[in-house]
Amino acid sequence: MQQISVDLGDRSYPILAGAGLITRGDLLRSHIKGSQVCIVTDDTVAPLYLEAVSRQLEGLRVISVVLPTGEAFKNWSVLQQILDALLEARFDRKCCLLALGGGVVGDMTGFAAAIYQRGVDFIQVPTTLLSQVDSSVGGKTGINHPAGKNMIGAFYQPQAVIMDTDTLRTLPAREISAGLAEIIKYGLIRDVGFLAWLEQNMQKLRTLDAAAVIHAIVRSCEIKAEVVAADEREGGVRAILNLGHTFGHAIEAHLGYGRWLHGEAVGAGMVMAADLSRRLGWITQQDQQRAISLISAAGLPVSSPEGMEVADYQLHMSVDKKVMDGKLRLVLLKQLGEAVVTGEFAPQALISTLEHACNAR
Amino acid sequence: MQQISVDLGDRSYPILAGAGLITRGDLLRSHIKGSQVCIVTDDTVAPLYLEAVSRQLEGLRVISVVLPTGEAFKNWSVLQQILDALLEARFDRKCCLLALGGGVVGDMTGFAAAIYQRGVDFIQVPTTLLSQVDSSVGGKTGINHPAGKNMIGAFYQPQAVIMDTDTLRTLPAREISAGLAEIIKYGLIRDVGFLAWLEQNMQKLRTLDAAAVIHAIVRSCEIKAEVVAADEREGGVRAILNLGHTFGHAIEAHLGYGRWLHGEAVGAGMVMAADLSRRLGWITQQDQQRAISLISAAGLPVSSPEGMEVADYQLHMSVDKKVMDGKLRLVLLKQLGEAVVTGEFAPQALISTLEHACNAR
Repeated sequence: MQQISVDLGDRSYPILAGAGLITRGDLLRSHIKGSQVCIVTDDTVAPLYLEAVSRQLEGLRVISVVLPTGEAFKNWSVLQQILDALLEARFDRKCCLLALGGGVVGDMTGFAAAIYQRGVDFIQVPTTLLSQVDSSVGGKTGINHPAGKNMIGAFYQPQAVIMDTDTLRTLPAREISAGLAEIIKYGLIRDVGFLAWLEQNMQKLRTLDAAAVIHAIVRSCEIKAEVVAADEREGGVRAILNLGHTFGHAIEAHLGYGRWLHGEAVGAGMVMAADLSRRLGWITQQDQQRAISLISAAGLPVSSPEGMEVADYQLHMSVDKKVMDGKLRLVLLKQLGEAVVTGEFAPQALISTLEHACNAR
Repeated sequence: MQQISVDLGDRSYPILAGAGLITRGDLLRSHIKGSQVCIVTDDTVAPLYLEAVSRQLEGLRVISVVLPTGEAFKNWSVLQQILDALLEARFDRKCCLLALGGGVVGDMTGFAAAIYQRGVDFIQVPTTLLSQVDSSVGGKTGINHPAGKNMIGAFYQPQAVIMDTDTLRTLPAREISAGLAEIIKYGLIRDVGFLAWLEQNMQKLRTLDAAAVIHAIVRSCEIKAEVVAADEREGGVRAILNLGHTFGHAIEAHLGYGRWLHGEAVGAGMVMAADLSRRLGWITQQDQQRAISLISAAGLPVSSPEGMEVADYQLHMSVDKKVMDGKLRLVLLKQLGEAVVTGEFAPQALISTLEHACNAR
């Protein structure tokens, strides 16, 4: 088992990663303060792991809530199922929520914990590669709104993140690729050495070689923890973690949440960010090609989805959270391994990038 | 103008109190960082003050949301009106919400600010006596749920609280009395000298004598700020601010929110807390009578509402947030001017208090 610490003063917490951790009752219990636990999961993960986790918590008062699976259900009415269950069980402010599942389950459980009785404890037990390397770390929680993704939410930190790499074995290949998108992102924004390691080890990762997977997860979480510790509430540097996400969110919003996986949209989005960075003269054509090749080698899309036009991007990107006082800001690459958040680009360059992405397919 | 500081590290903020402050555009603007402002108010306050406040903000991009008036509308669907308006106006993370109204407007606006794009700025401009001395200070925000009051919410601090005592002149006498309930509470829990001052000045307060009102507001906010600074998230001492509130919430939940004003329910609730404290031998019969007389002199009810039975209290009190691991804790008086939060009382003593309150009417 490997341990990383996210340093946020009195909101600090550990990330634990290793094989078989969800069957380690001692580990789970050591982060639960009271006697009331609500396991929140979805109808894909519940048949696989709910009983195993519940069994570890015998003697505590455990309830569970099984949500419908998918980003399309990351909304207020599904969130209410969690809140209603807590109230029905008369759980008090000392209760603990345990998020067992992917990013949607983690985001919704974290947000429910943030707003139930003005805040209760929660533990992240991410079961997908994407959520292990991304959404379970950093305290972003929330739900979608018809007007945009993650528009309603809170910064709220868990007591602990417990990652069992064994749970990755039940994931479809497409979900593994989606997780790899975020892993590639960490290399692109912060660590060109890690990027080179990924170029060497992509096939091992896609086939879930144990040592390679643990290395990729731990290095990804280390980078994320560093960035989050420097800027918990995304006032500045933290926004670099959104490389490719503004484009990606536009894709998800246009298609309807859940049609493309989040990681797939981010993969195509990172290709667009690299394209724009090259147009601005910040990275070379060769750098751009390395990014595209690696994203493609991970099994991710590298162009815009069929039928989506430049105007669709423009519509959806203007409500992105990185718009400040009406000016669109994007995460771009100054070089491989270094990202910046900037509004300093010619609008025409962005349009050229979008046109290229829409024509490339 | 008087100024008090609420000391919460990087979440510290000033409370400003004085006559005519809502027409001081410089003061309002000095706490607004960006260019987007959403004034949230209700259909009682809007005709009185919305235009005056909007006029002070000329040159900024100002929108307003007018909510239906009252505790009965402190729910998710009304909260969504605020969130929808922000999204429709495409307000970004640098926007500022301004709560213009009483406690319901303040609680809902603060909660909307807490969860819009994971948190934006907000300013409290409380226009009722109750919200000036209580809900606008301390960062408790939230909405009600059919299963209980304030069950969904967040601790979220404003940038500033700006109290214009001129706005109290448009309040009905019943609302003034409701505000006095919380003012009396500060004397009972923390300052017996202030309690004696209130006994001398109750008639001046009810007729809104300017000097007396400012003194009562400032002393109340000082006490609240001290308690909140010691315990922002209500892990301990802060709960003493809820003297009378567990009983009061039961009354409000039983009658349906809005039938009795919050302050009225707290008034009757403090009488019950004093009764139980006397039964436990902590305060004398004479102390108890002082509390009852002062609450009565403020124009507040001192017994349970018609038709409410002991069983109704028991039902509603078991979902109160002060239940920890299934054990009911109450705020009681060790002596006049000193409150404790305790679960150490014989259940029979509580039942006797409830029976007495139900039979006294």
